[in-house]
Amino acid sequence: MKTYVDCIPCFYRQIIEASRLAGLEDSTIKEIIDETGKILEESKLDSTPPEVVGNIYEILRKRLGNIDFYKQIKEKSNNLALSVYDLIKEKVSSSEDSLLTAIEMAIAGNIIDFGVKNSINVEKEVEKILKKENQFLKNNNNNFFAYEEFNSLLEKSKKIVYLADNSGEILFDRVLIEEIKRLFPKINIIFAVKETPVINDALKEDALFCKLDKYSTVVSSGSKIPGTMLDLCSKDFLELYKDSDIVISKGQGNFESFTDKNKPVFYLFMAKCQQVAKEVGCEIGSINLFFNGSK
Amino acid sequence: MKTYVDCIPCFYRQIIEASRLAGLEDSTIKEIIDETGKILEESKLDSTPPEVVGNIYEILRKRLGNIDFYKQIKEKSNNLALSVYDLIKEKVSSSEDSLLTAIEMAIAGNIIDFGVKNSINVEKEVEKILKKENQFLKNNNNNFFAYEEFNSLLEKSKKIVYLADNSGEILFDRVLIEEIKRLFPKINIIFAVKETPVINDALKEDALFCKLDKYSTVVSSGSKIPGTMLDLCSKDFLELYKDSDIVISKGQGNFESFTDKNKPVFYLFMAKCQQVAKEVGCEIGSINLFFNGSK
Repeated sequence: MKTYVDCIPCFYRQIIEASRLAGLEDSTIKEIIDETGKILEESKLDSTPPEVVGNIYEILRKRLGNIDFYKQIKEKSNNLALSVYDLIKEKVSSSEDSLLTAIEMAIAGNIIDFGVKNSINVEKEVEKILKKENQFLKNNNNNFFAYEEFNSLLEKSKKIVYLADNSGEILFDRVLIEEIKRLFPKINIIFAVKETPVINDALKEDALFCKLDKYSTVVSSGSKIPGTMLDLCSKDFLELYKDSDIVISKGQGNFESFTDKNKPVFYLFMAKCQQVAKEVGCEIGSINLFFNGSK
Repeated sequence: MKTYVDCIPCFYRQIIEASRLAGLEDSTIKEIIDETGKILEESKLDSTPPEVVGNIYEILRKRLGNIDFYKQIKEKSNNLALSVYDLIKEKVSSSEDSLLTAIEMAIAGNIIDFGVKNSINVEKEVEKILKKENQFLKNNNNNFFAYEEFNSLLEKSKKIVYLADNSGEILFDRVLIEEIKRLFPKINIIFAVKETPVINDALKEDALFCKLDKYSTVVSSGSKIPGTMLDLCSKDFLELYKDSDIVISKGQGNFESFTDKNKPVFYLFMAKCQQVAKEVGCEIGSINLFFNGSK
């Protein structure tokens, strides 16, 4: 997806938020904003939004080193997710269609995104989605929720690459991965996290904390942007990636940045802003299992 | 009030919105965003936010001339306000404390601000505020709603300068002005609008459309920013201004920019963002009749 001019205020909002978390004073944040202006001037609108955000984030990395400004928020998110794990797990196991419910929960986990909103009451949101358990089923027949294709392609797959999104959310991904492994025990899952701290995206330490390694092979994609682009991934990751049968691209950042015309890609995410909703053709807040969307 | 770094995403949002209204394409808007970055680089955080927005707005003026991009929105606002005029007027005339209710309504009109929000259902908002008619009374004893001072200073005044805010809203101001004139017939009111189109701020044509000239002397303050700073006002206005007894500063833009330590100033506005709320010491959405706030 290209960058819309409307994404730009949001880029500034994100860099200000990260700068605040880094404990910087307003006068220093103003300098970072000025540098952001220069990076944006050099950026083209045909870059993906996470690529531009990654470049802006480099300003902080150059000034402060590879510090994980969101560490506390990510730890809180992981713990918050863990606190509702039993609830989600029970919901999945008691469901008539456990895979569908697990997908629902994985997308529900996508609301834990401190990069887009400043604060949300996760538990309330989870409860809300759990109560509306049929909302995805209702959308089951539209283009944005390709459950049948997903199910049938899983049956034929041996290896899945799962592109992780945020901390906290990955615990919800684990529930989906557990369910895939239970139903299709022969499938190997590569769970790809980011290489360096960027916003609240999950790193290896988050995936290990949430015990993703019990059900998948946790690797770094090599990505330093809040999304995934094959051009910017590491050779090691591309080696693991090349013979995968399906890609599950999780979250808005990966939707905005990831494309591979040679593989089936399922984008699992909630459309959190007008620009992404426009790109998909769905409404804001819409919950998608988008199959190989043209982007 | 100084500019907070958190105001900057909002500046970008405003210039993008105005550019869209001007019918510009995204590639051109990107150029304007790049120019905005340069203006912000030259701007200091001790400038007022409306001053910075005014400078950013100059980019559009230089490119497109003095076009009124918000003309249609302003006309819609004026008409929308007119459609609820009878309701407001009736509410004021049937009130036990008509001046207080007129103040309430003038501040209610402040929600009609297309510069801060993209769309609001004005009628619903007005209804909501009309229903909660006692909410201001409840706040009557706090520092942010100085009704007693306002009432007692009106009794001693001969000349008031009323700094207008947005189109549509000015019709609500008219109701307050009508009430002041009814209670204190000897008071002269100078109703000061902006010199040139800037966002949805009221111009002379709006004030005349809303018949403010029946109850006050409608003048331009000379201001070309979405607020009022005496340094940037015209000589003609300052001549009228100098012997006024009270200033009524309407709306957030005037709160952010206007100060005069030599006169009693009443700021009538709703705090629409975190930065302004922080500046006042009130909560977001709080409705204020703020007396000579230290800024």
